[in-house]
Amino acid sequence: MDLPNSVVISEEGPREGFQIEPGPIATADKTALIDALSACGLRRIQIASFVNSKHVPGWADAEAVIEGFTAREGVEYSALWFNESGMHRALAFKGKLTLAGFISLSASEPFAVRNLNRDRAGQVKAMRKYVRVHQEAGVPIAKIIVMAAFGCNFAGDISPAKVVETVADGLAIAREAGVEVRDVSLADSMGWATPRRVAAAVGAVRDRWADLRIALHLHDTRGQGIACAYEGLRLGVTAFDAAVAGLGGCPFAGQPGAPGNIATEELALLCEEMGIATGLNIEALIEVGRFAERVVGHRLPSAALRSGSLAAFRGKAA
Amino acid sequence: MDLPNSVVISEEGPREGFQIEPGPIATADKTALIDALSACGLRRIQIASFVNSKHVPGWADAEAVIEGFTAREGVEYSALWFNESGMHRALAFKGKLTLAGFISLSASEPFAVRNLNRDRAGQVKAMRKYVRVHQEAGVPIAKIIVMAAFGCNFAGDISPAKVVETVADGLAIAREAGVEVRDVSLADSMGWATPRRVAAAVGAVRDRWADLRIALHLHDTRGQGIACAYEGLRLGVTAFDAAVAGLGGCPFAGQPGAPGNIATEELALLCEEMGIATGLNIEALIEVGRFAERVVGHRLPSAALRSGSLAAFRGKAA
Repeated sequence: MDLPNSVVISEEGPREGFQIEPGPIATADKTALIDALSACGLRRIQIASFVNSKHVPGWADAEAVIEGFTAREGVEYSALWFNESGMHRALAFKGKLTLAGFISLSASEPFAVRNLNRDRAGQVKAMRKYVRVHQEAGVPIAKIIVMAAFGCNFAGDISPAKVVETVADGLAIAREAGVEVRDVSLADSMGWATPRRVAAAVGAVRDRWADLRIALHLHDTRGQGIACAYEGLRLGVTAFDAAVAGLGGCPFAGQPGAPGNIATEELALLCEEMGIATGLNIEALIEVGRFAERVVGHRLPSAALRSGSLAAFRGKAA
Repeated sequence: MDLPNSVVISEEGPREGFQIEPGPIATADKTALIDALSACGLRRIQIASFVNSKHVPGWADAEAVIEGFTAREGVEYSALWFNESGMHRALAFKGKLTLAGFISLSASEPFAVRNLNRDRAGQVKAMRKYVRVHQEAGVPIAKIIVMAAFGCNFAGDISPAKVVETVADGLAIAREAGVEVRDVSLADSMGWATPRRVAAAVGAVRDRWADLRIALHLHDTRGQGIACAYEGLRLGVTAFDAAVAGLGGCPFAGQPGAPGNIATEELALLCEEMGIATGLNIEALIEVGRFAERVVGHRLPSAALRSGSLAAFRGKAA
């Protein structure tokens, strides 16, 4: 079995989770969760969204969260934003955050029309402006994110050719701006991926651009996330997003209670138990996941929170 | 991608689920659930356990359930028992049930000692007697079940060599009794499997016995079940057990709330979305899963119950 020696798992639980939870979560709980995550061996944690608090009340305290958490040496903390105003809020924290912009494009035009009110041309135009604004502010463009890369609740199946077309749009936007982008993230925004679709999309992108690095952002909406992650590992993908405890959820299209991102501790368990180094402390992640459940006040999707890791049982058995 | 054209998924939800649920479940709800499952395209449904009702009160009504459900043409209904007394209770229903015994052996000796009070020699001795009793009653021995085939909470990792040894014990028991057994089920009783362990165990059994048919009974205790099922498919395994909605749970070793069997509708979705025929109606299974949640009175593990299948969204998108 030919699997990578190591992978990097980027934690998105704080950003994903706090935006979708209905109840107000105390800023102190948010920072406590981020601090606890910082002790789990993660190298990248996305900790906040600079979004309009009228639309996303859960991130009204983004500034307070970033002021409040304790940055740990060797961990990159990032935030997410979608426009110039968000970028400027982030710039106030450029000492504490690793700032980067992303060229985000949906492979599904109906998804972009519905969620962003933009067709394909509108997305490209908006991203051209976004890149220019970031260049002027000296904020690097780190990667291309392909949303709905495997299927879409509004468009149905998404072909690998459509993914390639979307990556090509992103690369053209970068090239026109004189920016080099080598990283592409394929995001299963609505839980349509299967291992076969992962193989087809990753294969199509690699066939066209051998030098791009591909990351996977997988959702577990229909229970297929970890199988898709495994297929990614088989294909040699070494960068994944995940959310501790499966924090977050599926913000799109009327699927209340459906899981969102795959759980960090379950992905780490998959990797470590197959000999793929993650640098993560699974026991510590499980404890943070249980803490996250107390913070949000309800059960989160991760099965590993119930069962624990295997290391604990190995210890008892030994 | 070289995957099988079709698989058979055996439903174990009723048997697994009703034994573990703490609250009493009305017999009428049990039969309604079985009848609903019968309409989903399943070919095999395990519907009851003939066990001591002092130990498993949830199956005190096994006879009433079997009398009450409506058998559907083309579906095999089975029950489970562990001893002569259970077998005789089952024999009363030989018109309605497909009766078969199993040579069940644990690959983990500590597991067998703890759960059955039998070491390896004790297991073999008990199974010799079990086979003899079944032969005398004219009940066929259908397969060898290897419990704890991938790891054990009390023994830690289980090597493929130990799995081979356990299968060899089972085949020797069958051979001594003049019984031919061609089917072996590898059961991940405590959720230790990873795709790599599945590949190693399946490979080791095949290397030794090219003509055995291997089935997988996978638990989702730590969120790895569907990835292991995918690996099974990749290896050409075409027989799986599953439980609608993830009914059941992990009855072993202090993991309350941890999932048990992988969910039938999620496994069917994995297969069908990759072009592997299951004969199952995923929409109908999801509805039965939602009904199962109402019956047991709490949320069950399957994510697909929240999100629905993809076919529904394809229909809307088309």
